[in-house]
Amino acid sequence: MSAPDYRVYLVLDPGQCGGLEGMLRVSEAAIAGGAGVVQLRAPDWKKRDWLAAARALKTLCHARGARLLVNDHLDVALAIGADGVHVGQADLPAGVVRSLLGPDAIVGLSVSNAAELAAAELAAVDYLGVGPVFATLSKPDAAPPVGLAGLASLVSAVGKPCVAIGGISLDNAASVAATGVAGVAVIGALCRAADPAAAARALLNHFREKP
Amino acid sequence: MSAPDYRVYLVLDPGQCGGLEGMLRVSEAAIAGGAGVVQLRAPDWKKRDWLAAARALKTLCHARGARLLVNDHLDVALAIGADGVHVGQADLPAGVVRSLLGPDAIVGLSVSNAAELAAAELAAVDYLGVGPVFATLSKPDAAPPVGLAGLASLVSAVGKPCVAIGGISLDNAASVAATGVAGVAVIGALCRAADPAAAARALLNHFREKP
Repeated sequence: MSAPDYRVYLVLDPGQCGGLEGMLRVSEAAIAGGAGVVQLRAPDWKKRDWLAAARALKTLCHARGARLLVNDHLDVALAIGADGVHVGQADLPAGVVRSLLGPDAIVGLSVSNAAELAAAELAAVDYLGVGPVFATLSKPDAAPPVGLAGLASLVSAVGKPCVAIGGISLDNAASVAATGVAGVAVIGALCRAADPAAAARALLNHFREKP
Repeated sequence: MSAPDYRVYLVLDPGQCGGLEGMLRVSEAAIAGGAGVVQLRAPDWKKRDWLAAARALKTLCHARGARLLVNDHLDVALAIGADGVHVGQADLPAGVVRSLLGPDAIVGLSVSNAAELAAAELAAVDYLGVGPVFATLSKPDAAPPVGLAGLASLVSAVGKPCVAIGGISLDNAASVAATGVAGVAVIGALCRAADPAAAARALLNHFREKP
């Protein structure tokens, strides 16, 4: 398969989308607008619900050429054959995820500062989620914002694609894209958009053609 | 390996044990008193903590001839090579767990009533956790208690080992054992015991010699 297109990276939130039906609707529209990656993230859900949502999203994403990643729950990813897993600092270590998912899966890791980047198992990851760039309401336990200068500094120190996350909106996406990131990960900017396809197109416009 | 000894089945609770150190202390004592199975259950924990606890518990259990099962998180079980996984009705389906863990793993499933038992993928499970037998404080979202008569009825309908769970104490364990269950799963009766080894011995006394 071709390399993932990280430029517009949708992170789903059941609350902001209005449940599974809304998550499917937002995903379909965002992919139509250019989102290349969809991440299922539902920290409050039990895994039976994760499984059903992941199955439906995989079908939807693959029919439209997008990748489906699963946040945290490697077992759900294995169960449905997702394209990969995204883990945070308190989740399973990236090396464990890689060894269980195999070499072809996409493994992403969140880093929030230089110390976390220095400790990251970079050999095990395909991309880094860097942030929060700005203050965000979508993740109550998020680390302090790194800001645009902090983001640029972290991005320049890594030889892997970096996806910026945290408080990214249509208003500030241009300045985020200018830091050299491979893409922007958004929750609210797509899940709460009146027109998620148009919002995805607007985000995509800040990046060059797909590498 | 020999068949699991389900007679005294310890379910760990970080709060009731006092964190990981307490969980290891209780597990060691309970196994010394005759517990044959230890289940790691920590619904509020992030997986990095699950992983560390599961690794330490596996070492402890295997050095003493007990089995370590992981509640819910199949990925944690795969990562550390646990003996198996226990799932509830809202977790990954037992058939999915079996297919990902392979034929040699121990797979347990919770059932709370005849409808759940009728729907259970019995071919995929090694044992059933049946309950709650009595009202319990350890699991706030537990189903209504089945009582001793309900337990006996469910047990007699299954051709698999049944482990009773929910509100089982040293005072009522004899009546629970008399229903024909293979064992009793307890949280508080061991995690909060002044002498978990003695408590495990007292529970074991209600069962015949290991089959």
